Amino acid sequence: AMATPTTPLLKDELDIVIPTIRNLDFLEMWRPFFQPYHLIIVQDGDPTKVIKVPEGFDYELYNRNDVNRILGPKASCISFKDSACRCFGYMVSKKKYIYTIDDDCFVAKDPSGKDINALEQHIKNLLSPSTPFFFNTLYDPYREGADFVRGYPFSLREGAPTAVSHGLWLNIPDYDAPTQLVKPRERNNRYVDAVLTIPKGTLFPMCGMNLAFDRELIGPAMYFGLMGDGQPIGRYDDMWAGWCTKVITDHLSLGIKTGLPYIWHSKASNPFVNLKKEYNGIFWQEELIPFFQSVTLSKEATTVQKCYLELAKQVRAKLGKVDGYFNKLADAMVTWIEAWDELNPPKGAITTTNGPALKSK
Amino acid sequence: AMATPTTPLLKDELDIVIPTIRNLDFLEMWRPFFQPYHLIIVQDGDPTKVIKVPEGFDYELYNRNDVNRILGPKASCISFKDSACRCFGYMVSKKKYIYTIDDDCFVAKDPSGKDINALEQHIKNLLSPSTPFFFNTLYDPYREGADFVRGYPFSLREGAPTAVSHGLWLNIPDYDAPTQLVKPRERNNRYVDAVLTIPKGTLFPMCGMNLAFDRELIGPAMYFGLMGDGQPIGRYDDMWAGWCTKVITDHLSLGIKTGLPYIWHSKASNPFVNLKKEYNGIFWQEELIPFFQSVTLSKEATTVQKCYLELAKQVRAKLGKVDGYFNKLADAMVTWIEAWDELNPPKGAITTTNGPALKSK
Repeated sequence: AMATPTTPLLKDELDIVIPTIRNLDFLEMWRPFFQPYHLIIVQDGDPTKVIKVPEGFDYELYNRNDVNRILGPKASCISFKDSACRCFGYMVSKKKYIYTIDDDCFVAKDPSGKDINALEQHIKNLLSPSTPFFFNTLYDPYREGADFVRGYPFSLREGAPTAVSHGLWLNIPDYDAPTQLVKPRERNNRYVDAVLTIPKGTLFPMCGMNLAFDRELIGPAMYFGLMGDGQPIGRYDDMWAGWCTKVITDHLSLGIKTGLPYIWHSKASNPFVNLKKEYNGIFWQEELIPFFQSVTLSKEATTVQKCYLELAKQVRAKLGKVDGYFNKLADAMVTWIEAWDELNPPKGAITTTNGPALKSK
Repeated sequence: AMATPTTPLLKDELDIVIPTIRNLDFLEMWRPFFQPYHLIIVQDGDPTKVIKVPEGFDYELYNRNDVNRILGPKASCISFKDSACRCFGYMVSKKKYIYTIDDDCFVAKDPSGKDINALEQHIKNLLSPSTPFFFNTLYDPYREGADFVRGYPFSLREGAPTAVSHGLWLNIPDYDAPTQLVKPRERNNRYVDAVLTIPKGTLFPMCGMNLAFDRELIGPAMYFGLMGDGQPIGRYDDMWAGWCTKVITDHLSLGIKTGLPYIWHSKASNPFVNLKKEYNGIFWQEELIPFFQSVTLSKEATTVQKCYLELAKQVRAKLGKVDGYFNKLADAMVTWIEAWDELNPPKGAITTTNGPALKSK
């Protein structure tokens, strides 16, 4: 029998990013798991409202005034009155890893009744490779008690670095408004004890409710778009980020895992309100998916930033005709990268002596 | 609450194909589940050896003499002294569905301790669509208590017809010889309560131990190749069939599911013997995977047979230089299709009045 390997806490390398906390129980419930970490709270609405963070948490809080002050005119790329504003937190973090979670997500229990340490499982997922190039039928081959099955090419067994860990939700499933309306009582009771890599070339719906990623590997692609106040669409922030991220991880040979850990999603949002936010997205999505399925990035796109700017260009060229919104979004994508690079100057630019040569690469 | 939909037995539409039964307990253990079905047993070795089938089972048994008598010179495409010969059973079946299982696979228990009716789950998998064009994070959206999640395009929610249901194994995992040697004690104890579609464009290692498929949709692609007696390779029969099948289902917009049901795999085969069978495959596989990942079929390939013959041509053209074995295999692939069509004359050729017009299509 093997000893169970312990998972590092990474407490100096991971920030937890949370949009507005409306629920006072939220942090209390997560205290045993979150207290060791630094929190970044991004307030999505009225900046005069005060969010009370319980004693003992190490946190920084940004409201709209802070976003405007820090980004100046570039603040236009950050959504207002929408939890999509959380991506501002990804930008100001200085850590290698980000975990983001919604304030209606609580600690779930595994089938044995034990509280699930979601963060620990995300860290496990991120620290072990992904297998995007070939499917392993026993799921994540790097988990204890599992491996690559017969017929899995040996040259592919090193896998690829994992950029994203996408966790799931027990209780209220993440359904769109039409499905919520049709199945108001459906609950997710199925605990699927698996982690798996989304294969290369396959898109998936990335949910931002319970999501971790490696900022250094993929951070600049995690832009949650223009949603909420003044925008014709909502509830597609994480989807947009997911489609962009998947195309870029595929291009850069990085991996995305989905499955464990589960959180307990406590409250279904209002399906009527959701329908109003979603209806354009439901319609546009039928053109967005073929776009993302066929988009290709050039050989010169060797960094996430370069990939993202190429993608912005193609969004304008191909999706601008779907709706004028996508021209605005393409602009915002460029602004986002400019803001990202301003707040996160390339390490090479500071520490290396041959900076200009590196930049011209 | 919804009533649980009952799964049809399909007892007049499904054959169970089993290679040589060496183990008398095997059928007794499966009796409650298998007795309603017709069994096709294909004996892989010495034809004079008698296989005793217990009372009460409806079966037909083929040994090498039968294969030779029925196929004549075309019998050369059926492996001898290897369980790959089972594919002869797929060819002589007249049913819509096939389930194939190895004789060291027993009834597994689900986490509640209940015997798993593997066949029932395979039928569920085959009768509900697959989702090869976009990944659903809550796994099979057609299972009870599940659905498509937010962000899943509505135009893709009808899915694709399911051609293959690939079941898994508790206890002894399906490892290759090197992994068996390195991890002799590893057992698969993880019951993953999921069924999922292998996405389009992604290859997987298909294991023939616990496998069901729709003969009408994909039968002619389920050729288990040339293995065993006189051949330089073994234990790649199901892998070969899986790679060919995946390329063809992708081309024809059909789906392949993997996951549930589990069987209990009772006995690890000898890793030293396995290594001898596998070493060429382990080596060749590094060239086979890139081949199958890049192979394309023409628009004219509108039937499984046409796809398979195109594939055979490309196997000869591209893999013949890897080893002369692949030229022999390409010939056998053609022979297999000829034999299949002889035993399974196209329905149109008999029942339609404009047969020649249909044939010339």
